[in-house]
Formats: sequence, structure tokens, C-alpha cells
Amino acid sequence: MHNVGLSCFIASHSKDKQVRYMIKDISNLQVKLQTLLAAQQEFYTQGKVANYIPALAEVSPEKMGVCVSTIDGKTVGAGDYQEPFSIQSISKVFGLVMAMNRIGDDLWQRVNMEPSGQPFNSIIQLEWEKGIPRNPVINAGALLVADVLTSHFSSSKLAFLSFMRSLAHDDSIYIDNYVYQSELAHGSRNAALGYLMKSFGNIESEIPEVLNHYFTQCSVAMSCEQLATSLLFLANKGIDPISKEAICTPRDAHRVNAILSTSGMYDQSGEFAFSIGLPAKSGVGGGVIAIVPNYGVICTWSPPLNSFGNSVIGTNLVASLAQELGLSIYH
Amino acid sequence: MHNVGLSCFIASHSKDKQVRYMIKDISNLQVKLQTLLAAQQEFYTQGKVANYIPALAEVSPEKMGVCVSTIDGKTVGAGDYQEPFSIQSISKVFGLVMAMNRIGDDLWQRVNMEPSGQPFNSIIQLEWEKGIPRNPVINAGALLVADVLTSHFSSSKLAFLSFMRSLAHDDSIYIDNYVYQSELAHGSRNAALGYLMKSFGNIESEIPEVLNHYFTQCSVAMSCEQLATSLLFLANKGIDPISKEAICTPRDAHRVNAILSTSGMYDQSGEFAFSIGLPAKSGVGGGVIAIVPNYGVICTWSPPLNSFGNSVIGTNLVASLAQELGLSIYH
Amino acid sequence: MHNVGLSCFIASHSKDKQVRYMIKDISNLQVKLQTLLAAQQEFYTQGKVANYIPALAEVSPEKMGVCVSTIDGKTVGAGDYQEPFSIQSISKVFGLVMAMNRIGDDLWQRVNMEPSGQPFNSIIQLEWEKGIPRNPVINAGALLVADVLTSHFSSSKLAFLSFMRSLAHDDSIYIDNYVYQSELAHGSRNAALGYLMKSFGNIESEIPEVLNHYFTQCSVAMSCEQLATSLLFLANKGIDPISKEAICTPRDAHRVNAILSTSGMYDQSGEFAFSIGLPAKSGVGGGVIAIVPNYGVICTWSPPLNSFGNSVIGTNLVASLAQELGLSIYH
Amino acid sequence: MHNVGLSCFIASHSKDKQVRYMIKDISNLQVKLQTLLAAQQEFYTQGKVANYIPALAEVSPEKMGVCVSTIDGKTVGAGDYQEPFSIQSISKVFGLVMAMNRIGDDLWQRVNMEPSGQPFNSIIQLEWEKGIPRNPVINAGALLVADVLTSHFSSSKLAFLSFMRSLAHDDSIYIDNYVYQSELAHGSRNAALGYLMKSFGNIESEIPEVLNHYFTQCSVAMSCEQLATSLLFLANKGIDPISKEAICTPRDAHRVNAILSTSGMYDQSGEFAFSIGLPAKSGVGGGVIAIVPNYGVICTWSPPLNSFGNSVIGTNLVASLAQELGLSIYH
Repeated sequence: MHNVGLSCFIASHSKDKQVRYMIKDISNLQVKLQTLLAAQQEFYTQGKVANYIPALAEVSPEKMGVCVSTIDGKTVGAGDYQEPFSIQSISKVFGLVMAMNRIGDDLWQRVNMEPSGQPFNSIIQLEWEKGIPRNPVINAGALLVADVLTSHFSSSKLAFLSFMRSLAHDDSIYIDNYVYQSELAHGSRNAALGYLMKSFGNIESEIPEVLNHYFTQCSVAMSCEQLATSLLFLANKGIDPISKEAICTPRDAHRVNAILSTSGMYDQSGEFAFSIGLPAKSGVGGGVIAIVPNYGVICTWSPPLNSFGNSVIGTNLVASLAQELGLSIYH
Repeated sequence: MHNVGLSCFIASHSKDKQVRYMIKDISNLQVKLQTLLAAQQEFYTQGKVANYIPALAEVSPEKMGVCVSTIDGKTVGAGDYQEPFSIQSISKVFGLVMAMNRIGDDLWQRVNMEPSGQPFNSIIQLEWEKGIPRNPVINAGALLVADVLTSHFSSSKLAFLSFMRSLAHDDSIYIDNYVYQSELAHGSRNAALGYLMKSFGNIESEIPEVLNHYFTQCSVAMSCEQLATSLLFLANKGIDPISKEAICTPRDAHRVNAILSTSGMYDQSGEFAFSIGLPAKSGVGGGVIAIVPNYGVICTWSPPLNSFGNSVIGTNLVASLAQELGLSIYH
Repeated sequence: MHNVGLSCFIASHSKDKQVRYMIKDISNLQVKLQTLLAAQQEFYTQGKVANYIPALAEVSPEKMGVCVSTIDGKTVGAGDYQEPFSIQSISKVFGLVMAMNRIGDDLWQRVNMEPSGQPFNSIIQLEWEKGIPRNPVINAGALLVADVLTSHFSSSKLAFLSFMRSLAHDDSIYIDNYVYQSELAHGSRNAALGYLMKSFGNIESEIPEVLNHYFTQCSVAMSCEQLATSLLFLANKGIDPISKEAICTPRDAHRVNAILSTSGMYDQSGEFAFSIGLPAKSGVGGGVIAIVPNYGVICTWSPPLNSFGNSVIGTNLVASLAQELGLSIYH
Repeated sequence: MHNVGLSCFIASHSKDKQVRYMIKDISNLQVKLQTLLAAQQEFYTQGKVANYIPALAEVSPEKMGVCVSTIDGKTVGAGDYQEPFSIQSISKVFGLVMAMNRIGDDLWQRVNMEPSGQPFNSIIQLEWEKGIPRNPVINAGALLVADVLTSHFSSSKLAFLSFMRSLAHDDSIYIDNYVYQSELAHGSRNAALGYLMKSFGNIESEIPEVLNHYFTQCSVAMSCEQLATSLLFLANKGIDPISKEAICTPRDAHRVNAILSTSGMYDQSGEFAFSIGLPAKSGVGGGVIAIVPNYGVICTWSPPLNSFGNSVIGTNLVASLAQELGLSIYH
């Protein structure tokens, strides 16, 4: 069903894992991506750059990038697709995979996998459900995952960074310390979520440690290209198509895609499924990643957010690509 | 991606739309289905037959059926797959398609498409969101849809029945009057939902009329075979593969599948996506339907329900089939 | 403790129960009341006349009355204190007394006596607490009381009207049919509350009957003078000081005063206690009654309401009187 | 209205403020108190000693004391009324008075004065109302008050202890360090409330400081006698009847009594008003204080709590005394 429109993806080879895989008929898709970007240029005024911390508020609203990576080893991008930005909540996907790998199904005793039906950081549902977060990609769930990592790694922050570098096949990936410090200074709501879970006995580590890990994770800076590459395993039944390494089990890749499909786009997840139809995750830094099972990953970046916290232009770009290339999983 | 395991589905042709399409290699899949049923035989005691109305409480808990219909015109079943049962909430899928066809995108001004994050008939979210139901497959949303039908058809009940008969290509489909009367007599909670939406100005017709339509819809009796056949258009971009008629637009078929994926299985929808991965809808009569895009429809029936209101055995059967045949949309 | 400032209340006698008891030194308090009214004249623009039904929306916002009745048989008023208005939710007090008299402590199995902490007609708390209203003076609780009356009187509407007439010692009290019809036509929210309670098994009668009674009750028209007189028993341990008849037990008078103190003024009840300190009840018709234990009753009327649904001027008048005369129960 | 049954309170004089004022006809009330205690002896098994911290769990469930202090300077007690216990939430009353004195009406911009309608430490309402606690005697409100004290006193903990000692006219009052350390180690839920308010910008100090103050306050140990004496100003329009000093304005004494009447007994406040009728506050240490305006203060102590967190026997004792002596404010 996904064989329409992606004929432009033809493999080239690379000699070096640090060199990006390239698409032969690069002009075709690249022209398409550039056309899509051009069509969105006006729309950055329709959203609002996240301003809860200065480090995010200072990013130019006109930044815009898009990148497509495929499981047969090609990557093509347009705009600012090689410029690192704050991945923020997109990090929840990676943290989740690490925690699944580390403690297996025990994880699902402590966090649910249901859509939340509430704004992304709602404390109400957490109280209602006695400290069990609805799913691992709302803030409470991601803090629970951060607790798992903090408790099970001697240095969870280093482990996280290593994981990101190995997935992206790029050791230049770094933690943006300015963002990290900003997050720490504005972390009251996440602290509230953490302490509430702790009061229900669902957090093992000390909350400041958990927050430290979580904010570190959110402060990783990556480009569209790096993100798209590093998530290919989710489009490929858990196998990194570059290294051929198993990053997670096929079952867990399935599960992550399911969770991203029902819950990845905050309280706009249903609408995203309804009109686009791909497992996806966004971050308040303006990034959006979308998994296309058996094909590849789309990553977009544009800082201005809509009222749900999703990038206006980023969402539009994914929508256009998905529609033109016939990528939805619901057809 | 769905080419594994379904090699048993080989087309035969039929000259008559009332004659069921048959699978040539019928023994293969039928044996599989019978084996699956046999493996479930003990599990009917793990659930509880719906008992809020006598008409449902009286159904034997040991009834059990499964049927697979494919878009290339074959149907194979096992157990009680040709015995009609009360379709209950599965009717919401058909009502939704009728309303989309009738009023187009105006529908989405009056009902949302987000997962609910609350038990299926929760009045709280409806109050919170000022009379706009979260989605059209929770009770409030289905009542909203029933209001659209009541307001836009001279006889919405007849129109609904005709729609069902034409989709199933079977004029014997009927409304179970005993169930209908039972529902009417126990409809207080749905009345509460209806009046609450009306108080917010989101219902046009009178509530008793809306409830009449809704309970009529729920009281339609159909077999697994009839249900599987009648939903093929959702697996086929809106086209009934038997009559070649367009039942809805490809876009609307996509939308329905998306809604069923995020919200079709009550408050177990996330778990269903997580572990099975198909657009699906269940009813308290014990039926479950699952759409496999580009392939076909699975329908199961077994009255005992789990705590979420989903058939225990029905869910197990869909899970086994989906896994064995590699049907998930998230791979 | 209440002996300050009310020295103006000196008894006169009356030979006829239809003749109002008068205060000898009438000029003193009457002047005070007129002064208070004059000081409020500008403030009717600060509120908004209830407009959910035409019958209320049409009342002049400039109407204004105040009346004080004491347990030693005097009544003095100013402004439009003898003009009947729609008593609306003030009727909840009378319905409650009737139900307590009729079924005794069984009532408290079906309705709680806690403040609600939610807007007055919130359906959320009702759902949360499984159909048990928080208290009998929020809408859900008053509907529960209406169900008790409907189930236990052959004609609860006549019984209610008789009760009002006997308490006010005035057979001219009537039901305003225009208001009643308006209420019936806009009763969806109350219907929702009723059906929700019925779905939990907490309503015996049919909902249309319960609503009929409730709207009848709300549509009684009475003046400040009639209301103040008819509630004297609550300031007098259950005894009507005019007829010397026991209207309810001392214990029940205590209980009603307690409920009015914690919950009588919608979601402004706490502020009313905080700044004024009297058991009180308001109605969206613009009336406010306040009980002064051991002394008497204040009733005010002015249609424009604040955001909580309480009369702006009415609340001000009670506040001024309570402060000047030192009437609070919390000193 | 409060002149019945208290004839036993006849003043004696004392020469020293450290010497307790005594009741001449001491035998009368003391016998009554002893009789009441004896009647309750069996009931300690009906409740459960607070066990969220060891320091409270270790207190003997059979401890039991009662004390009455009057504004004309007499005190009489029975049972363990001179044994210090952990005052816990009763401290909220004193903290509130200190904050009102310190920042005046600014306080009411940051905390409401409405009953909560939710369990005492509910985080849901706090989220709903954007970080503004419903009232100052639920945990969130008390933390807000603690923030005011922390921000406005160079050493709020010392200031609090001094305030307690001066009110009780007893310099032996102390902070129980074992309780304090226990509280600190089990403070996650209060931390969650604090951080949630901070995330809404409604907390000025750092949360650890606020919690330090709050837990210190809760860990003050006082006897029934000390508590009853120290609260006399609330029964006396703000004036300490012993020192004649104004502890707060008459208006603020009124306000505190109003808040305690609608919200002092957790989610049993309405029932307490309904059946007893006095401004009151309880603590999980088993203490209950009740203010009788113009007369005095009752303090009881018995550790086993009911499901609302109120002392079973303590509540019974206040009820019996209030009824026998005719003390309710709603008559």
C-alpha cells in the first residue's frame, strides 16, 4: 500500500557511517521538499514559539527544516534540516525504548498505554488513577520512565547520550547546557507530577535526580537529519537498517508505534491520526517526527507552536508529505 | 507488508450478490479459525455477559463465532458465525458513516475526534468540554450522530436499517424488538448525556426521538458474517468490493479507521493498539469487528465481557489472528 | 449576642393573621432600610438579570425591595418589598423541609449535606459520587427532594403550594404559569441531572414528573414580605411564631440553617459566610433570604445577578444590615 | 441564646498568667466531662490512628482528653487533657491568623475562602482553579499560608513558636523533632501541591523552605488545655481575654470562624455543621478544637480517626457537649 510516490527513493551507498546516505534521484524528492517548505514560509506567524524558558523563546521563528530518511539507507532534506534544535519531548520516544529494553514488561505495571484525553501534563488524571500515568509520552509517564532510567543505570544521563549518538551514528550530538539550566529553573510543574507519583509509591529515585535526568534528555540538541536517522529502527521492526543491529524487539517497535499513534501529538493526537495517519511525536522545540512503518522516518522543524503545543508548520509538512506520498497507516 | 500468512485467501467469484463469496482453499483458514475457537472454549468464564438489560443477560455465554471477509470477495467462518446477535455499539460505526455522508465536515463542528481517556459513557468530559463529545464512538458522540440522523432523515430508523441491509447484501437483517424495548426501559444514562448536550445547544431534535433512533440502531441483530461483509468498504478505501459502489470517500474511510484505532475499544483502546494494532469496535452484545486496511474485516462474537466492556474471547481471537497473519498496521 | 442595634424591633399585635405584624418604632428601621436602598440604587448595572428564560429576562432590573420580619411578630420593609417575584431556588428550602418532615432521616441516605465546591448545577460531582447529590440546595439535590415529594404526595404540587400559603399566612400566593412554561421549555440541564441520578437508581418517579414538580416549585411568586414571614420558623427552632405551630423539629431547623450556611449561596457560600455570616439562600429571580437565629428573617429582591448567580444588590443589602445590626452567627 | 447549661462556668481569678484560670463550681462541669469520657471509652476501636508516619502511628489509641476554656477565664478538663500531642492541621488556624495579620487582604488574592468539596489534600481542584487553593485550611491553602510566613518573617518557624507560646501563655510549648523528621520524610504529596502552586506563580519562596515551615508548624506539641486557652481570642472578637491583647481584628476573628464552620473538618465539614454547629478544626494527631463565639473553646484529643481524618471520639465529645450545653451557632 505504500508503493505510491516514493519511487524517488533510490539507494546510493556511502563508505562511511558518518556520511549521510544519499538518494540518487535526489532532485525529485528534494524539489518536492523545497516546494513544500516554500509553501509554508508565511505560516510561521500562525504559531507561537515556546516561551516558558528563555532558551527556547530566543530561537528564530523563521527556522524551518524537513528531512526524510528511508530504511534502505537514503536521506534527503531541505531548509535548516542539518541545524540542531532542542528535541524536548521527542526524547520521550528514546527514553521509552531504553526503559523497555532495561526492565521489560515490568514497565507496564507502572505506566499505562492509554490515550490521555487531557492536556499533556495534566495532574488530574494522575491523581484520579492513583499515580499511574496514562501513557509514557505524557509528561508524567516520561518522568516515570526517567525514574526507571535513573534507578537502573549508574549514569543514566551518559547512557542516554550514548544511545542517541549510536542511533544517529553521530558522536557530535550534545546536550545544550543553556536549555538544561533553563528547564531546571522552570521545572515546578514536572516536580509536582513527580512528587505526586512518589506520594503514590510509583517513583523509586529522589525527585531532583529524576528531574535532572528528564531535563537532560529534553535538552539534547539534534537536527532533523539526525533525528530521522536515529528513529529508522521503529520503521524497521526494531532493526537499525544502517548497522543491522537490533535496537529493540519487533514487538516493542510495534508497541512504540501504537503509543505514538494514539498519544504522540498531545491532545491533538486523534486529529493527527484522523487527518494524517502516522505514528508521530512532537516537542515544544518545534520538532515533529513521524514513523512510516516499512519505509522510513520524516522529521520536520519549525519553532512556532499551535495551541496544542505542536509545530504549526511541522505538522503541515508531515500532512502534505503523507498525503502526496500516500503514507497513512489507515488506508 | 500484509502479505504474510494470508496466502490462504484465494478469490472465487460469485454471480449473485446474495451468494456469499467463498474461499477456494477454505480448509486452510477454516481449520485455523476452528483451532483458535477450540483454544478459547474455556475462557467464557473469564468474562461477564452484559446484564444491564434482560435481553442481553439471557444470551448464552458459551456462544462463540469468528468470521473473516476479504476485499477480494471471500468469507470464511467458524462456530456460531452465522447466528445473529445484538450489534450494540458496533452500530456506531455505521451511524457515523451515514452522518458523514449526510452533513460532511459540519459534523466535526459538533463532535471531536480525540480519544476520550475516560470510561465510555463518561459525563464528566462532556461537561468539561461544554457538550462537545470527544469522539463519535463514545456514547455521547453516538447520540450526537443519532441526532444528526434524526434531524436529516424523514425516517432515520428505516434509513439505518436499509443501509445495513445494503451493506451486508442481505435483506433479512432485522431489529430485535425485545432488545429495543429493554434498552428504552434502561436508557437513563444515555438520556442524561443527551439532555446535557442539549443544554449546551448541541442537539437539534427532541431527546426521546434521538434515544429512539439510538436504541433502534443498537438493537439491530446481525451475524459475524453479515458484519464482516458489511464493513469491507472500510478496508477498501470506501468502496464496497462486492457491488463496487462507493459507500464513502477514501478520506472518510481513512478517518473512520483512525477513530476506531484510537477510540474503538472503550478505555482499552490504547492497549488494543499496543498489543494488536487494528482499527476495531466492540459492542456489549459481545461482538468485535476489526478492519484490516487493503485486506478485509474480522468479526468475532462471544458474549462474556471484560471490565472494559469488550468481549474477552472476541478480543483474544482478533489478537491471535492478527498476530498469526501479521495484520497489524503498526509494523 | 444579637442584642445590638435591633432595639428598633418592638412588638405590636395584630388581630388578624392576614394583617402584617408591625413594628412600633417603625420609622427607625424603615428609615434605615430606605437609606440602604437609596445607597444601592446605582448598582443594578453591576449585575445581569437571568436570561435563560424570557419570563425572567423581562423583569425590570431596577426593581428593588427589602424586608425584615422578626420572631416577635413585626415586619418592616422598603422599596418593592410587597411585589411578588419568582422565588426560584429559594423554593429549595421549603421543599427540603417538606421532605424532611415526610421521610425523616431516610432522606440523608439519598442526599449528602456537604458543601459542593463546584458551580451550583455541576454534573461532575454527581457522577463522581455515583448519583448522590452533595447537598439538597444544589440543583441535583433539589431534584432528589422533588422526587421524594412526587413519590410521597398524591399531588405534590398542590401540597407545596398549600405549604407556602400556610407558612406565609397568605392564600393569595400563586404559581406563575408563564415562568413555569418557560422553565419546562429550558429544562435540559436539570433533565440531565435527573436522568443521571436515575441511572444510579437514586430517583423513584419518572423524570418528567420530577421536573414538573421542581419547575412548579421554582415558579411560585412571592414578595419579600411573604418570604420573610414564611421562614420565621427557621429562626425560631422550628416553631412558626405567628401560629405557634411546629413546622419542623428544632433539630431539623438547625440542620437547614447549617446547610444554608455552608451551601446556600452557590459557589459564593464561603465568601458569604466569611463576610456576612448568616444562613442564606438566593434564587436566580433575584431574591435572597437570610435567617437570623432567634431574631428573624431578612429578605431582599433585586434581579441583576453576579457571576455566581446571586443578586448583587440583594447580597449588598443583607451585608449592610448584618453588619450594622451585628447579626452574624460567627461573632 | 447560649445561656443554657453553662451556669457551671463561674469565674475565679488568678494572680499569675501562667496559672490556669479555674472554674469555681468545678465539680459540675468536671463530672460532666468525666461522664462523657467514660461513655466514649469503648469507641477508640472504631477509628484508626494515623499511620502515614511512625511518629503518629506509635501514639496509644486509648489516650483521651477534653478541655473547656471560657472567655471569662476558666478552664476545666478531664482525661489526658494536659498531655501534649501533635497538633498537626490545627496549626493551620494559627498560621492563618499570622498571615492575615502580616499581609492583610492581599492574602485573599492568593487563596479563596470557599469550601472545597473534595478530600482535604486534593490536587484536582488546585489544578482546575489554576493554583488558587479553595481555602486556607486545606493542605494547599495551608502551604500557601506557609509561603506567606516564610517570605515575610526572617525566621518564620521561630515566629510561629513564639506566637503559640504567647497565645497559650506557656513557654514550655515545643516542636516535636521526631514528628518533624517523620513528616519531612513523607512529604511527597505536600511537595506536589507546593510545586503545582509554584508552577502557577502562586508561591514566592522555594518549596523546601515552605515545607520546612509547614512541617514545623504541624509538629508543635500541645495539650488540650494549651490549645483551648490559646484560641480564646477567636471566641472573643479577636481579644485574648487573659492578656486583653488584640490578637487580630474582630473582622478577622469572624472570618476565621466562618472558614472553620464551612471547611474546618475536611470533607465532613458539612455534616459537622449539620449535626453539631460550631466552627472547628481537627488534626490527624487526633485533636479537635471548636470555637463557641462569646463563650469559649472546646478541645478534645483521641488519636483514632474516622475515614475523613477526624478523631472519632473527639468528634463525639464535641457533639455531646455542644448538644447538652446548647452551643450551636445555628439555633
